[in-house]
Amino acid sequence: MTADPELDRLAYDLDRAHVFHSWSAQAALDPLVIAGGRGTRVWDHAGRSYLDFSSQLVNVNIGHQHPAVVDAIREQAAQLTTIAPSTANLARGQAAERIVARAPEGFSKVFFTNGGADAVENAIRMARLHTGRDKVLSRYRSYHGNTGAAIVATGDWRRIPNEFARGHVHFFGPYLYRSEFWATTPEEECARALHHLERVVQAEGPTGIAAIILESIPGTAGVLLPPPGYLAGVRAICDRYGILLILDEVMAGFGRTGRWFAFDGHDVVPDLITFAKGVNSGYVPIGGVIISDPIAATFDERVFPGGLTYSGHPLAAASVIATLDAMESEGIVENARRVGAEVIGPALAGLAERHRAIGEVRGEGVFWALELIADRETREPLPAAAMGALKKDLVARGLLPFVQDNRIHVVPPCVVTDDDVAEAVSIYDAALGAL
Amino acid sequence: MTADPELDRLAYDLDRAHVFHSWSAQAALDPLVIAGGRGTRVWDHAGRSYLDFSSQLVNVNIGHQHPAVVDAIREQAAQLTTIAPSTANLARGQAAERIVARAPEGFSKVFFTNGGADAVENAIRMARLHTGRDKVLSRYRSYHGNTGAAIVATGDWRRIPNEFARGHVHFFGPYLYRSEFWATTPEEECARALHHLERVVQAEGPTGIAAIILESIPGTAGVLLPPPGYLAGVRAICDRYGILLILDEVMAGFGRTGRWFAFDGHDVVPDLITFAKGVNSGYVPIGGVIISDPIAATFDERVFPGGLTYSGHPLAAASVIATLDAMESEGIVENARRVGAEVIGPALAGLAERHRAIGEVRGEGVFWALELIADRETREPLPAAAMGALKKDLVARGLLPFVQDNRIHVVPPCVVTDDDVAEAVSIYDAALGAL
Ligand SMILES: Cc1ncc(COP(=O)(O)O)c(C=O)c1O
Ligand SMILES: Cc1ncc(COP(=O)(O)O)c(C=O)c1O
Repeated sequence: MTADPELDRLAYDLDRAHVFHSWSAQAALDPLVIAGGRGTRVWDHAGRSYLDFSSQLVNVNIGHQHPAVVDAIREQAAQLTTIAPSTANLARGQAAERIVARAPEGFSKVFFTNGGADAVENAIRMARLHTGRDKVLSRYRSYHGNTGAAIVATGDWRRIPNEFARGHVHFFGPYLYRSEFWATTPEEECARALHHLERVVQAEGPTGIAAIILESIPGTAGVLLPPPGYLAGVRAICDRYGILLILDEVMAGFGRTGRWFAFDGHDVVPDLITFAKGVNSGYVPIGGVIISDPIAATFDERVFPGGLTYSGHPLAAASVIATLDAMESEGIVENARRVGAEVIGPALAGLAERHRAIGEVRGEGVFWALELIADRETREPLPAAAMGALKKDLVARGLLPFVQDNRIHVVPPCVVTDDDVAEAVSIYDAALGAL
Repeated sequence: MTADPELDRLAYDLDRAHVFHSWSAQAALDPLVIAGGRGTRVWDHAGRSYLDFSSQLVNVNIGHQHPAVVDAIREQAAQLTTIAPSTANLARGQAAERIVARAPEGFSKVFFTNGGADAVENAIRMARLHTGRDKVLSRYRSYHGNTGAAIVATGDWRRIPNEFARGHVHFFGPYLYRSEFWATTPEEECARALHHLERVVQAEGPTGIAAIILESIPGTAGVLLPPPGYLAGVRAICDRYGILLILDEVMAGFGRTGRWFAFDGHDVVPDLITFAKGVNSGYVPIGGVIISDPIAATFDERVFPGGLTYSGHPLAAASVIATLDAMESEGIVENARRVGAEVIGPALAGLAERHRAIGEVRGEGVFWALELIADRETREPLPAAAMGALKKDLVARGLLPFVQDNRIHVVPPCVVTDDDVAEAVSIYDAALGAL
């Protein structure tokens, strides 16, 4: 591609004139123009390039423009882009087959949606209809998407102006660094968080609760790794009261943690699994619900009252097939695990030693957070103005960061190399030094 | 493509094993395998082909696999499939520019979503926040999508098992053939439907009502063309009480009626327009809200609390650009208008003369319904068993029909030819004769 700054100007002007942006006041926006990408890099039309340590919205797990996935999209585009959900389509069936192959035993069926929010919507719908119960419990500090049921399942501020639906109850989850339970060890945090959850269940009336929905690892809320035993403990509470467990793997799933699913290795099997993002890195919008057999069977003779025009979209399905095959054959999930354990973890720990603004480093795979604070004693979050300046500085230094509240999430694609990490860490280092 | 019946079997088996279908009990499904298509035809792997008079879910307005749109997708795929909504991207800006160019004056911005339901979600969100009011009114006999707010705006049975959200009120709209108002002329139906709506508004408390949402022409509910003056009358009621008017153009928009928007020519300007389907024929999932300037301005300084990972997806945007350009340069909207007025309308009227089961024919462009009845006096709908048999027979005769309740919707792509219509009508004729 030849550099063409005119195109940057055009893209910018059209955006400002005609594109309404999410989660923002529109007047002050100053969006970065992005025209292309490859692997861990993206660039504009003028020849400026950026190291992508955001994976956009933590979705481009396989990196930008993976050639096998691009080829698969191009091939499927030439054959059949779209067909109604009521038909059978080979790409759709093969995508579903590959997805269930990575789920625990006892999950045979996939309901496809367009993204994460409608995956959560439909998981909640299934849970309500399967149990005949209404209430849904979810954590504060969580994000489950932006439609009428998904947004109220969400546990951050984005729920408040959207609270049209009812029957959603929020509880506190484990987060030792800012414990809601006066705990001082992971064991204590885990035990007390489970006690709290069980008390909420009892107080809300267990026989009215359809499901508990949890991000296996709350992502946007801060990469809050559950302490060992927490997810299994939630499963035990669910079983005690006949409540379904929905694990939301939209952000954490398909490689981000260095495992196919974030709950793998947590000794827990959910009833429903929601996914999107990493399943095809968002090359074509898709998401869905992986359904355990007893819940699927509920709808064998009974109509499932849910659907959407693009459920099981062939173009998206083709990109799922190519993505999962490439991740498998190229060892991309293993790469995320190795780089996380051997390179990112140690490097971020080193940063934390050098910068007093880093209160905590936590994560695994390519799913990390630096919690930035004004004061190590009080753990008071770094103020918004400083975070804004830091973000700007990182971009100016050629890195696309993922900044959320008082945190930098270090979330590169799973294909990230040791050299990429070294480059990113030296940029974080310089920017934190300039704070 | 060489015929390969083995692939049909594989596609079918994978579907039955792993794909969970919308709006269905799963056990009895027997989906048709579809492998490819072009224009008004689709086919399986074995060489069987079908004339598509459904446009799938009434979305493939430009026909299957339009070469210019396929090329645009392939090109954009090679350049950049996905990028976060917070960036500026040329394809996204150009798609927005082309969409607002077709909207009335005073609409400058587009908020992109993945499909129709989340378009409706976000329109309702904007209306609630702009007005500071909660209630949303919509018609019985309507469909607005399947997420937590969209599904309760919906006015058919699909709402009932999904009624998690509150603040939604339904009213009756004009439908002379089955009038709720004892009307006998279009004028009377219009006046009485408006009177009814105003009474509901007054009884619900006008100062609590954020919006009235209407399909410009209710589609799934039966292609219920509003009588002249109805939409303008609703606008007047909205203005009288400070209520916003959302016109849902997801199915009716972008060519289906032989106009760009179904409300064009109805002497009405809404406050928000929702779209999906026809905007790119669903080649890549996309939808959105076209926002009038005063509502957009509400969010200049105030954060809009809505968003989704794939908002303004470049691959989808590229397909929007190519679709709208091809529809324009090839006169595809005009074709829909001409074929509707000169060929489909007269042919269906002819069918109605020959078959007593046809109670009413209504429509325009490539958006028609045959209302099938058991008795011309009572207008009792043709029973479900007969409809099922009819659908099966049509497929066996090589036509993909759109069957809904007691109706056949005659909804081919906008590129349909006179010969296609002749072929389809002779198939409808034979199947109705065999009833
Ligand atoms: C855990 C989780 N669930 C659901 C969603 C919603 O996904 P989408 O933006 O595709 O609707 C997100 C998005 O960030 C997420 O992180
Ligand atoms: C008028 C209308 N609105 C909204 C929708 C929902 O669109 P989607 O299925 O893309 O969510 C539909 C779908 O048929 C529709 O016809």
